[in-house]
Amino acid sequence: MVYELYYWPTIQGRGEFIRLALEEGGAKYRDVAREAGRGAGVAAMMRLMNGRDVETPSFAPPFLKAGKILIGQTANILQFLGPRLRLAPKREAARLWAHELQLTIADFMVEVHDTHHPVASGLYYEDQKKEARRRAADFLRYRVPKYLGYFEKVLSQGGSQKPYMLGAKLTYVDLSIFQIIAGLGYAFPRAALKAARDYRRLFALHSRIQSRPRIAAYLASPRRIAFNNDGIFRHYPELDAPRR
Amino acid sequence: MVYELYYWPTIQGRGEFIRLALEEGGAKYRDVAREAGRGAGVAAMMRLMNGRDVETPSFAPPFLKAGKILIGQTANILQFLGPRLRLAPKREAARLWAHELQLTIADFMVEVHDTHHPVASGLYYEDQKKEARRRAADFLRYRVPKYLGYFEKVLSQGGSQKPYMLGAKLTYVDLSIFQIIAGLGYAFPRAALKAARDYRRLFALHSRIQSRPRIAAYLASPRRIAFNNDGIFRHYPELDAPRR
Repeated sequence: MVYELYYWPTIQGRGEFIRLALEEGGAKYRDVAREAGRGAGVAAMMRLMNGRDVETPSFAPPFLKAGKILIGQTANILQFLGPRLRLAPKREAARLWAHELQLTIADFMVEVHDTHHPVASGLYYEDQKKEARRRAADFLRYRVPKYLGYFEKVLSQGGSQKPYMLGAKLTYVDLSIFQIIAGLGYAFPRAALKAARDYRRLFALHSRIQSRPRIAAYLASPRRIAFNNDGIFRHYPELDAPRR
Repeated sequence: MVYELYYWPTIQGRGEFIRLALEEGGAKYRDVAREAGRGAGVAAMMRLMNGRDVETPSFAPPFLKAGKILIGQTANILQFLGPRLRLAPKREAARLWAHELQLTIADFMVEVHDTHHPVASGLYYEDQKKEARRRAADFLRYRVPKYLGYFEKVLSQGGSQKPYMLGAKLTYVDLSIFQIIAGLGYAFPRAALKAARDYRRLFALHSRIQSRPRIAAYLASPRRIAFNNDGIFRHYPELDAPRR
């Protein structure tokens, strides 16, 4: 099976959660919108969203083609890939728990996005800068501690011997935690510095994931798109925590 | 099995999607935070979120207790309940598709919430009224057509003979579509009047769901909490479409 991932070709965005799982899982996959030629590129992605013959069109990227199945919504794709890439537990209750955590990460991503686009995703950042400052300040003061505190609590349950979010074994949730910690470090470096002291386990998990052989190889490859200010995590210094 | 639903006791909110599924599915359930007495009420809900002995604590309500399993995140709960209440298809591809649609409805709900709380959910509406007007105007102009246009397209696929979102059979997705159409009618009555002309199939689906015997009985019962301005759908006339 060669999986086909469809996502915006110039940003990490939500597609990155899928790329990380495919890479760690050692899957064969195409990142179709980043390829050139017939049947590839953004045009191919748009055709799968808007084509009249597409039975299950997605509302937005990312989506994944796996043989005949077309699956949209990041967390849904991960729930599908998880067992196939040995990145999810087997028991139903544990799978639901992994998916619940992933959906909470998805909620967090919406809030990250809205720090720079609190009024409208269709407007430029420059047209909502004032509102963005208010929203980002609230985000760093209340929302980051709420989410990271929650994830840190989950990671801490069961004592210090628990290396991963679900317990003894790596799942796609850990890869996603890596990604949000990396994103916070890019977008809000001053706030992340403080967070690293407050949420030591999460940041340690981020480091462990980063040095896994497949992830390290991926991060060093051209397949990893650099963070940039078209993505969800954006670095606008005026939105970061104040200098101390 | 008596399901235990945990959600804020005075609003429809995200819990309503679960209530509708439990009601249409004829399930036995308790709406625990609405009950009085020991082991009930909001205190019982908070204990399941914050108790140190809870293995899979949710980030936020709603969550569902089904025997020993505790499940959070609205769409995750529905994906669990779906097959058990005969409100989901059997094939994996179709189940993933139902879940994808539900997750897109969840995304829509975040945007509904943010029309009145674009800066911070921790602040009063009165403290972000100006920003709310900007965000709500964009929401009604661009986001409602994008989402409802998408759901209308899905409902229209396969010709006029397709009564439900997934095809011939009712699923939890249809109940959720009912809820968002009902919510729009409460929160934005002027905009909803226009939408009813533009998205006829969705509004017709809303009417059909509303008159199903179990749903009609539920809506007429005290178990249905009325829409109110503490919920996600709120009626602030200044945020609605302008009078014509």
